[in-house]
Amino acid sequence: MDLGLIGLGKMGQAIAYRLSKDNHKIFAYDPNVNKVNIKNVKLEKNIVELTKKTKIIWLMLPASKVDLVINNISPHLQKDSILIDGGNSNFQETIKRYNNLKSKNINYLDCGTSGGIQGEKIGFCLMLGGDKNIYLKIESILKSIAAPNGYAYIGPSGAGHYIKMIHNGIEYSLLQAYAEGFNLLKNNDRYKNLDLEKISNLWMHGSIIRSWILELAHNIFQKDQELLNISGNIGENLTGRWTLQETKEQKIPMNLLEQSLKIRKWSRESGGNFATKIIAKLRNKFGGHPIKKID
Amino acid sequence: MDLGLIGLGKMGQAIAYRLSKDNHKIFAYDPNVNKVNIKNVKLEKNIVELTKKTKIIWLMLPASKVDLVINNISPHLQKDSILIDGGNSNFQETIKRYNNLKSKNINYLDCGTSGGIQGEKIGFCLMLGGDKNIYLKIESILKSIAAPNGYAYIGPSGAGHYIKMIHNGIEYSLLQAYAEGFNLLKNNDRYKNLDLEKISNLWMHGSIIRSWILELAHNIFQKDQELLNISGNIGENLTGRWTLQETKEQKIPMNLLEQSLKIRKWSRESGGNFATKIIAKLRNKFGGHPIKKID
Repeated sequence: MDLGLIGLGKMGQAIAYRLSKDNHKIFAYDPNVNKVNIKNVKLEKNIVELTKKTKIIWLMLPASKVDLVINNISPHLQKDSILIDGGNSNFQETIKRYNNLKSKNINYLDCGTSGGIQGEKIGFCLMLGGDKNIYLKIESILKSIAAPNGYAYIGPSGAGHYIKMIHNGIEYSLLQAYAEGFNLLKNNDRYKNLDLEKISNLWMHGSIIRSWILELAHNIFQKDQELLNISGNIGENLTGRWTLQETKEQKIPMNLLEQSLKIRKWSRESGGNFATKIIAKLRNKFGGHPIKKID
Repeated sequence: MDLGLIGLGKMGQAIAYRLSKDNHKIFAYDPNVNKVNIKNVKLEKNIVELTKKTKIIWLMLPASKVDLVINNISPHLQKDSILIDGGNSNFQETIKRYNNLKSKNINYLDCGTSGGIQGEKIGFCLMLGGDKNIYLKIESILKSIAAPNGYAYIGPSGAGHYIKMIHNGIEYSLLQAYAEGFNLLKNNDRYKNLDLEKISNLWMHGSIIRSWILELAHNIFQKDQELLNISGNIGENLTGRWTLQETKEQKIPMNLLEQSLKIRKWSRESGGNFATKIIAKLRNKFGGHPIKKID
């Protein structure tokens, strides 16, 4: 299929790569990128050129840039074009954009995208919201980007971003759960020098707590289980806060998420501890999020 | 290898099965079991008969029964026998038993065992503490019980039970993390009737939060995503409380574990909610722990 791709950051490039290997033809644009070395990807000079080439455009942008880009491209879009927002947009913004574009005969799908930068190799998990008949038109694209069986239609506009938001809310707590356990293993004075590389590897084989996050932790501990030269300052994107806000509005608590967000805030004020260093490292591992080094 | 097995509950039987398929010869005893249909397992009339047959005895008992059984068998044990405690004993009790038995020329290993009743098929995760030379003597047994690469020597007496205790502390938080996310998916008034079976399945394919616990949740939702006829009362064994106690003594907090234990307590007082029903179901799924039905 021919499609456009706006945004060639870490995630945008990973998606371009997955599309290209299945021989989709990609017209890409990113104001900060002058050169791309991925086959089947043609870099366009500007957004106007890109909209001439295709009626299907994937947006892989920071949440704060989506309205700007939509405003810039929408006057140039061909009728019945399909825009797909694959980023971490707020579901309420998504619904507004959907309605606004609908009135201009432009189709709009939301796609929650999980998998992080490692998704380039093994494929992503894609959670789709919007009109189902439009979803069906781009299925071959989704299949190329996703891990095997890793895409599905969830519901009307915003549903994809909504469940991705809650997915991230769960993720915050999972990261904290492992991190505080490893912190006790590392720093207790009963059994000193417990080997976190060995233990995280062992727990991957047959234990109840085996998971992808544990596998990433094991990869980290293989190289370094002291984490002396990084800060325990944990960043965050907006999805965790949005989930917490939603739990308040819906009066459906997510207590562990709330606690995890408090700990992240504390980590930024204090520099954190061994537990928050693990989370900073994990976020770097799966999301490419920056970590602060200590000299 | 020839060995004894005391305790034929859910976990004891699963272990007997795994040993038997690798043709270990098992002399088993359980006061509540009169018949076993597992090849290579011979049921003994009493503990004295069992101790005559072998110098290696695996104990698979509730934590409260371990001292009683050790007191009963230790006068009859052959010199240099090896006892292995595969249950969820407190690591401090384990160290006492180790020292006490050492003075009687009996070897004592502790083995944290994870994997639940599903471990019968795919093997368990075994975390060993005690003398390494004794561990090496029973390695062929461990290999049969464990999942591939699912056993390791961790450290001196108690280390196996210590890391299993912390493993369980992490597990409590992981269960709560998923449960509260699914609760918001289920009960929000934005997107009604979200399909938890579909979403949990989708998240298994390429998402950051994929895990064994998520796979079990998917199995539950395949059959029932309303959970109307069960109580949200979550039981617990002692390992979560012990971990919390240890965090206080070590002044190394595990905030999510503490929160998860509070929620379990609340669930027993109130009957809980959809989130705690999921945890009750998951515990039943992996550990065979009873769930209360509602008529």
